[in-house]
Formats: sequence, C-alpha cells, structure tokens
Amino acid sequence: MTSHERPRFSGFRPPAVPDVEMRGFWGNRIDAVADKTAMILYERCVSAGMFDQIDPTRPVPPVKMPWHTRADGTPDTVNVQMFWDSDVAKVIETAAYALYRKPNPDLEAKIDAIIVMFADLQQPDGYMNSWFVRMQPGQRWNNLRDCHELYCAGHLMEAAVAYFHATGKRKLLDVMCRYADHIDETFGPNPGQKPGYCGHEEIELALIRLGRTTGEQRYLDLARYFVEQRGQQPHYFDVEAAARGAAPSQWRHKTYLYNQSHIPVREQTKVVGHAVRAMYLYSGMADVATEFDDDSLTETLKGLWEDLTSKQMYVTGGIGPAASNEGFTDYYDLPNETAYAETCAAVALMMWASRMLGRGPDRHYADIMEQALYNGALSGLSIDGERFFYDNPLESRGDHHRWTWHRCPCCPPNIARTVAAIGSYMYGVAADGIAVHLYGSNTARLSAGATAVTLTQETDYPTNGRVGITISLEAPAGFALWLRVPGWCEVPALTLNGKPVGQSEMRDGYIHLKREWQNGDRLELELPMQVRALHAHPAVRADLGRVAIARGPLIYCAEEVDNDADLNALIVPEDLTPSTTVEMPELGGALAIDLPVRRELWPQRSGRLYDTHPPEFAETVARFVPYHLWDNRDPGQMLVWIRGRR
Amino acid sequence: MTSHERPRFSGFRPPAVPDVEMRGFWGNRIDAVADKTAMILYERCVSAGMFDQIDPTRPVPPVKMPWHTRADGTPDTVNVQMFWDSDVAKVIETAAYALYRKPNPDLEAKIDAIIVMFADLQQPDGYMNSWFVRMQPGQRWNNLRDCHELYCAGHLMEAAVAYFHATGKRKLLDVMCRYADHIDETFGPNPGQKPGYCGHEEIELALIRLGRTTGEQRYLDLARYFVEQRGQQPHYFDVEAAARGAAPSQWRHKTYLYNQSHIPVREQTKVVGHAVRAMYLYSGMADVATEFDDDSLTETLKGLWEDLTSKQMYVTGGIGPAASNEGFTDYYDLPNETAYAETCAAVALMMWASRMLGRGPDRHYADIMEQALYNGALSGLSIDGERFFYDNPLESRGDHHRWTWHRCPCCPPNIARTVAAIGSYMYGVAADGIAVHLYGSNTARLSAGATAVTLTQETDYPTNGRVGITISLEAPAGFALWLRVPGWCEVPALTLNGKPVGQSEMRDGYIHLKREWQNGDRLELELPMQVRALHAHPAVRADLGRVAIARGPLIYCAEEVDNDADLNALIVPEDLTPSTTVEMPELGGALAIDLPVRRELWPQRSGRLYDTHPPEFAETVARFVPYHLWDNRDPGQMLVWIRGRR
Repeated sequence: MTSHERPRFSGFRPPAVPDVEMRGFWGNRIDAVADKTAMILYERCVSAGMFDQIDPTRPVPPVKMPWHTRADGTPDTVNVQMFWDSDVAKVIETAAYALYRKPNPDLEAKIDAIIVMFADLQQPDGYMNSWFVRMQPGQRWNNLRDCHELYCAGHLMEAAVAYFHATGKRKLLDVMCRYADHIDETFGPNPGQKPGYCGHEEIELALIRLGRTTGEQRYLDLARYFVEQRGQQPHYFDVEAAARGAAPSQWRHKTYLYNQSHIPVREQTKVVGHAVRAMYLYSGMADVATEFDDDSLTETLKGLWEDLTSKQMYVTGGIGPAASNEGFTDYYDLPNETAYAETCAAVALMMWASRMLGRGPDRHYADIMEQALYNGALSGLSIDGERFFYDNPLESRGDHHRWTWHRCPCCPPNIARTVAAIGSYMYGVAADGIAVHLYGSNTARLSAGATAVTLTQETDYPTNGRVGITISLEAPAGFALWLRVPGWCEVPALTLNGKPVGQSEMRDGYIHLKREWQNGDRLELELPMQVRALHAHPAVRADLGRVAIARGPLIYCAEEVDNDADLNALIVPEDLTPSTTVEMPELGGALAIDLPVRRELWPQRSGRLYDTHPPEFAETVARFVPYHLWDNRDPGQMLVWIRGRR
Repeated sequence: MTSHERPRFSGFRPPAVPDVEMRGFWGNRIDAVADKTAMILYERCVSAGMFDQIDPTRPVPPVKMPWHTRADGTPDTVNVQMFWDSDVAKVIETAAYALYRKPNPDLEAKIDAIIVMFADLQQPDGYMNSWFVRMQPGQRWNNLRDCHELYCAGHLMEAAVAYFHATGKRKLLDVMCRYADHIDETFGPNPGQKPGYCGHEEIELALIRLGRTTGEQRYLDLARYFVEQRGQQPHYFDVEAAARGAAPSQWRHKTYLYNQSHIPVREQTKVVGHAVRAMYLYSGMADVATEFDDDSLTETLKGLWEDLTSKQMYVTGGIGPAASNEGFTDYYDLPNETAYAETCAAVALMMWASRMLGRGPDRHYADIMEQALYNGALSGLSIDGERFFYDNPLESRGDHHRWTWHRCPCCPPNIARTVAAIGSYMYGVAADGIAVHLYGSNTARLSAGATAVTLTQETDYPTNGRVGITISLEAPAGFALWLRVPGWCEVPALTLNGKPVGQSEMRDGYIHLKREWQNGDRLELELPMQVRALHAHPAVRADLGRVAIARGPLIYCAEEVDNDADLNALIVPEDLTPSTTVEMPELGGALAIDLPVRRELWPQRSGRLYDTHPPEFAETVARFVPYHLWDNRDPGQMLVWIRGRR
C-alpha cells in the first residue's frame, strides 16, 4: 500500500497485489498466467490489429469488426472494435500482475511501447480514446449509452494503477490522471458540463481506484456523481439521443434496464440487464459506500445482493442466463445448457463481493466470492493458461469448447487479471484488524493500522481444508484477526499454538480473534470437506429432481471422458458417503470424486418415442471432476446437475 | 358416397360424413359444434369483417390486419387477412357438417348468402379470391410462395364438396369447379402455364376431394402435378421472386424447408418446416398415391411417417414444437411448456394418418390418428364448443387459456370441422371389405363393394373399451371386416354371436374377419383399458425421468384445480395399479384417475437458492384428467409429464 492509499476510516480494503505472494494451487495458476497467458493476450491483440488503431504513428486502419445491427436490420452505432482500448487495458493490467510475479523484460518492453502509443494518442485537452481520436474523430461523447468511452477510460485507469504498482513507472498513470481531469471537467452538474454517465459501468470503480492511489478527492467525488446521476430524469440517454437526432425507440436493447439506468440507483431493488454492467455498477457503488462511509448505499446493495444470490445465480456463481442481453431474465430462470454465464460476469460478481467486504467481514459476501472464483470464473481459463471460455454453461452435449480467442475478447484478459491478482482478494485490511477471506498457500505482508503483520498460510486448499497460519510480527501487537468459516463447512476446528480455541466469537461467519499477538503465533484451522449434494430451490425448473455434487468450495461435474456419453442417464443416490476421492495428475493433481450410481440403460431402449416399458438400470461408478477444470481433456459432454434418486 | 365417388381400385376410402351417425362421446361433441360452434364461427367472421372483404356488393374495406414484418423490419408481402377466404371456407365446411347433423334454416341461409358473395366475386375467367380481386387487384398469382391463393382455393373446394353433400346445393360446387378449371389452365408444364405450386399446401388434397366428388380426372391429374412439381429446379419461388423484383434472401423464412419445397417430394426423408403445411402436403401425397395406385409415393410417405412419429411428435399427437416457424426443429426437441403444437397441426396429422389408411388398414397410422384426435386435436375445442386453443403446450404455469377467437383464426374452424366430420375418420371402405379404424357409438351406412352394410357400434368408448358391433344386411354377404386392436391394448378379446373368436388372423394390427356375414351378426370386442405410465425416449430431454399417464387412447394431465399448484412437486410411483377412476360430471362424465403419489414439500424449503437439505415428501393422492379437457374449469397450472420415481 503506497502512502497515498491510507484509509481515512475503518473500512476493510484489499491489499495491493504485490503484497501477497501466492503458492500452491493459485501459485501454479498465476505462473501459467505469467509464463503464457500474458504474452498470449498481447500477441492476440497484435493479431486483431488493435495497435494499428491505437498507435497514432501508424496509418488509420479500416474498420475490421462488423457493426452490430438493430432489430430492424440497420447498422447500430456500436461495434466491438470501439472498445478495443479496454481489452488492451486489461492486457496491460494482466501483464502488470505478471511482472509482479516474475520479471519479464520482453513483456515489460512491449507494454512500455503500448503506453507510449496511448501517451501519443492523448489530445492536448487530455481526451484519449483510440476509436474517437482516429476512427470517428469529432464524435466524442455524443453517445455515452453505446460507445463505451468512459468504460475504456476506466479500464485504462485500472491498468495505470496496476502498472505503476508493478514497475513504479508513472507514465500511464500520469496520462490517465490527465484524462481523468478532462473527464472531471466534462461531466458534472455545472453549466457547460454534461450530466451524463457511461452505458457500460466501470469508470466508477476505476475512479475510486485511481483516487485511492493518487489521493485525489476529485476522482472519488466524480465516481459518486456518476453513481448518483444514473437513471435520473430527464434521462441523459434520451437527451443525448435527441441531440444526435436518433430515436431512442430504435435502440436495439429497447429498455434502460439493460444498463441499469431505468431508475436512480438508490431505488433499484432487482438485479437486471447486462450482467457485467450490473456487477461493475454495484462494485462502484460499494466502493463509494466505503469511501464516503455511506451505509444508505450499502442498504440498497444488500437488497440487490439478496435478489441476485437467492433468485438469479447459478450454483457455479455464474450469472446472466441469457445471451440476448448477456444478462438477467426472470427469477429462477437458470437453464443449464443455454446458460450464458459469461466469464466476465462471474469475475465481476467476485469484484462486487470483494467490495461488499469493505464494510466489514461477512460470510454472505465472501462465500459467494469464493463460489464464483473457484467455479464460474476460473472455468474461463484452461489449466495451461492458453484457452478460454466466454460463456460457461452447466451442461453441454459435447459441442462447447474453449476458445483460443473471441470476437469480443473481454473475458480472456478479465479472468487472467483476476487470477494474477487473486492475492488481493484473499485479505481485507482495516485500521484495527485483518480479515482472511479466502484460504490458499501464501505469504502476505499486511498492516493492521500502523502494525506491519506478515501472515503465512500453509495449506493444500482447495484440495483439503487444513490451513496453517503463522503470524510474524516485529513486536507483540494487539489487533483483530478475522477467519472466515465457509458456509459449506459444518464443523470447523481451530487451534492456537496447538491448543483448541474453544467457543471463539463468531461474527457474520468469521471467527473473530482480538488479542495481543506474538511473533510466531501459529493457528491451525481445520475445515472438513465432505462431499455434498446440493439441491436447487424448486422454482428452478431446470434443476428439479437433480443434485449438484460439491466438495469444499468446488462444484463438480461429470464429463464424457470419464463416464462415456449420456450423462443424463446417471442417477446419484441420496447418500453420498460411499464416495471416494482420486487424485488426477492430468488435472493438475485435483481430486476427482468417484461415486456409486445408477445408470439408466439407454442403448436398450426401443426406437419408439413413447413406451410403457420402464427404463432399466445398472449399477456403476461415476466420476466427477471440478467444474472449473472441464474441457481440459478430451472433448465431450458435461453435466453439473445430475439426476437424483427419488 | 355419391355415384361419382366409386373407387376405381381397391384402396380404402373414408365414408362421407352423413353416412355415419355418431352418438355417445362424439355425438355430444358434434351436437356442441352444431348447436354452438358453427354459429359462433360465423359470427366471429362477421365481427372480423371478413364478409366486408368477400362481398363485392359492399365498398372495398381498408386493410384491417397488420402486415407481417421481415427480420429487417420492412413489411412482408403477406398478412393474415390475405387468407380470410380459407377461414370462411372452413366455417362453411363446419356448417355443412352441422347441417348434416341438425337442420338449421337460419345457419343454412347465412351460408347460402356467403356462397352468393363468392359467386358474385368470381371473375369471368373463373378466378376467385377476395384479397386479389378486391384488396390488391392485378397482383394475382405473382407470389405463390407467400400469398396463400391456391390454399384458399383448396379450402373452398373442400367447403363446396361438404356443402353439396349436406344440402344437395351445387352453387358453390359449380363455382369451385369453374375456379378449378381456371387453375388447371393456369398451372402446368405447358407453354404459357406457370410451373408453380402453393407455398401452403392444401390445394393438392382438395383437388383430389373435388375430383372424387365430380369424377373429373383433370383435378386428380393437377393434384399430382402440384405434388410432383414441388421443389423441382429451377425453383419456382426463386423464379417468381425474380419476376417480382424481390430478393429471395429477404424472405423472412429464409429456407424452403419451411414449406417443404427444398427438394422434390420424392427425395424428402425428414419432416421439416411449418407443421400444418407438411401434413397437408403428405395428405395430398397419400391421396395421390391412393388415386394413382402409386406405391412409390407411399414408400416416401412411410419414411416420413417413421421420421415424424419416432422423433418429432408429442405424446399428445401434437406436432411442431416451435412458434418461430410454427413447425419442426431438431429431432427429440419436444419442450413441454413452450410447445407450439398448433391445433391445426394435430388435425392435419389426423388427416395424413387417415389418408395413409387408403392403402389398407394398418395400426401404425390408425393408432397415431387416434392419439392425435383424442389429445392434441380435441384439446383445441372446449366442452361447450365455445372456446379454442391455438397452441397446445403440455405444461403451463397457469397463464395459458382458451381463446374466444384468434388473430389467425385457422384453428377454431379446423377442429370444429374435424369433430363434426369425425364419422368419416372411423371407417375405411373398400371393394371387398370394411375397416373399423376408430371406436365410438354410431350407426354407419356403408358399402363393401356393391353390398350395403349397416354397422352399429354400441360402446362407451373412450370411457371403456367394450364395443358391441351389429351387422345389418339385406341378405347374407361375403366380405372382410377389419377391427383395429389399438397398440395400447395388450389383451383384446372378441366374440362373434357370443362365441369367442380364437386366434383370429391379425394383419397390421387389425383383426381380419373374412366370412359370409348374416344379418344381425353381433361382435363383442373387449379392449381392456389399464392405466399406463408412458416413458419417453431418453433423447427427449424435456421428459427425462418423467412419465405420462394414459388410459386407452387418452393422455392424462394434472391440473391445479384438482391438485393445488406446484404440479412439478408430484412424483408418481412406478406401480400404477393402486389407481382408481372417478367419474367427473363437470367434465362431461369423463373418468379422472386418482393415484397415490408423493409430493415434494416446497413450502418447507428455505429461501436459499442452493441447499444441502434434501427435499421432504408427503404421501398424497393426485388426480389426473384427460389432457383434452384441461382448462375447462378454474384456470391454473397444468402438467402432462409428471416426475417419476427412480
């Protein structure tokens, strides 16, 4: 944490990425990002032609990506190429975290070169967006609803902060502060300013991040303005459409629910629209609540959180079932095979969850953060760091496979930057304490107020739930340590220096240990991982009569490679205690679960469509593997929700 | 059968409607059509303004129905109003059958008045179509693909035949013969003729019907031409689009699979496209096969039949799962809640099945005819004859209800004419025998070759499977009687004059009794009706782990009015023998089935979306009623495929 980032009051903030050195499960994943993904992402930006657009020393390239079309077939005002700046920004951010992990002069030189392009692109007034400087000059800020300008700016602010922390180099940070100053002058309630905000939220959380790093209060204030202005009347997107001479009714998304601007944010009670946009908005709102100590915003967020997690979330932490709006539909509408559940949306849910912890440790949020992380988000990146999922269905007939790239390449760098930055999600740091939100082998150099504390976690988590935590201090110090007891764990056990910590105080699902800590104090936390069968709320029609197999934070699935095809022929018993775990070297040593099940005998069926002969069954053993690891081996069918015995 | 309709060789043809006097179950339904539906249909045509369009003595009205729009939002060349002639035609046909049943001078006068309108509408050259004479004059025959002209002509030919049989009045028949002559001159392979055919099949089967009634061979030949020309290259719809200056790629249905003209009919092996169109085509093909004694067409039809009934048909006999094309999608894609399964499509499947019996009795076809009749077709008409279903889902959350009318009013008169004409579906008459395809209380005046035979069925079918058949003859006569043994019946029993008929010859699922019959011979057929649990082919994802309850030809469903809501909480046992039947006076005396089941206790569930607590159950008794009777009482949820015990 730099000197500028000192909290002004007692919220919990994540540590900076370099403060947490990951080993074990996450160490391996971060190494794959550092060794492969970061450079792959860079190379694919090159192949896509992104730098031809960004670099002002090159000729202006032709438009390469098709324009979206409206429902009436006419070209819309937006295409994917318009937000390439944001994709490059996430690549820079990923590279920054990769450089924390491992020096890589070649990668660093490439990123420095990109930063020069952006610096050269910046206009005298501070404006900087490759599309509107080079591809459509003169049209800046005339369509905030669709054109992603502030969204691109936000991602570049995040990249600038990350790269500054990684390398100490200020060039991009300075560029983005000038751009932020320009944005601050352009937008706001005063005469001559535009009372607008971005159709795709992101700038709000990015301004908070930039403000925390630079200490610039104006950035925090502007973030709050964007949050509070959203959805106010007269509606900015109506006004700007009229100014462009466009009819709002021609908009292909039809309703401002799509971008959460249908009503002011404080009046919102239902999670709606484009899933990533919603999560980024709520993340920004949570940041504003933390920075402005504003529990009125927190109350709104609590309602939205309950709405999302009790009615609109897949068991993988995936969200946004529909491809049509990349987002939410009706309550309990969670189809498995057609689940959109974009990788970015699960990442964004983690981001929101992480920020909800800013008001204090609470298992409500950390449990879901972990659920999304280990399942619907991590599924987006192959073990080797080379391939990606964009959408993350919970059932596949065998035709859904990892991409090497995507026309809309938002997800690959989003999951890569998240994996590489995972250390910052593990802890929350406050003036008087440290919260351990996630478990994983690592060494974290933190501070509780003025006290420097090094925490060392030794664990095979998530393979098992035994976690040793050693506290290193220069001198004895009093502070609170919060240890999360995951909701999936029924009987946790804790020792301190070998002695059971009995009836320790539980607060919101965290063991709260406030004491005078000594250097070398050693905690042993045992979180037994039973194989569990999860049942969905019966209103989830798609999961009726089915169970999801889980162990610890991991949701499991059946794959054809282990079980032959026809995974819907498998029927799991009510009692899962006969299950055994098997180490899978080809899946990075992950544990598979073998379970005696029934298999409905489909080949025996007649060719008749309807038949009075009841199905026949055989006893067999099915193998389940962690969902996030699916499609890392031979391609085939996959199924999360397995038919249950009744 | 009129003198003109004598078969030319040994196919089986349906008797004319007035030759079969229905009583019992069908008698009640026909009375409802005669007493109510026929006049309701007429009145709704009046309300819709159809006669303002048809009657040339009135001012030309404005266009009242919206135009369809293409995918690109531009108006298409077709609207529903364009085929109002066909709707009126089916109303005339329904009225004709109603007049067979019961004289009704008021209704007859109204129909006579409509016939005068059509006669006045007819052009000097014989052309007659209200849309293209009055609404878009000068545009006739320039878009066979979309504009339904030959389809309208076909339905009016069917109406003309029916009205002629009912009343002996030739006026409409003469009009339609003149129109048929004009069509015969206009279409064909010769110079100056159009080598076209209709985008919506119907004219083929109608020309056969008109040819059978009038003895005019040209009509049969033209039907064959339309069948054989379909899908030939150069593709007629491409050619006519080019002549209109239209781009075929702009067509909203995109592919000629939609109207089964993608390849010549003899090459077709997969049932595709719009369901009603497909069934009407196959009906026409089957008629052509019968009239031209052409088993090469029959072989094609057998393949299509197998394709439809083994991979693409709901258990109700409903077909065409998708609203988007009102038709077929992928094999085994049979979603229940979103099932389109248009009433017209089930009726049209009956029509095809009935015509497949033209080559000889075969349970393959008659079983499906009965399945569609008693379930997916009859569901389209309320008990009182006043309300209609257009689409027939197999599951409803309580928001699907019968219409008093429909924007596209094809289904109400289609199910009404079918119910009123049901007698003609019950028998097949050949030169040397009579086939009993369906059972129901009736007296049928038939002829086996030159021998007049009166068959009297006495039965409560479908309430139970006891059928008494008395044969009345003027003199002893030798002919074959074919009695269908439904596929659902495992142990049929038959006596002749009180003595068991042992090991009688079975041919294609029919008991074949060829003997010298005496006046007064009495057959007693016993078709025991067990309550059955039907299992779907496991590739039908929507029905996996579920069963459909059936008894005799009836598919049953659960309704909220009998079982409270949450019908998906019901779980039926493997053994259905504890079931009992209950007479339901409010459902016309139909038998309900009461069955001990488990109910998953949903109110007890926590508000959590995912939970390790397994569901709890209570024992209860569920009531199931015939599917075709659903939504005749208090509105609510409905479910056909009930969760089964595993």
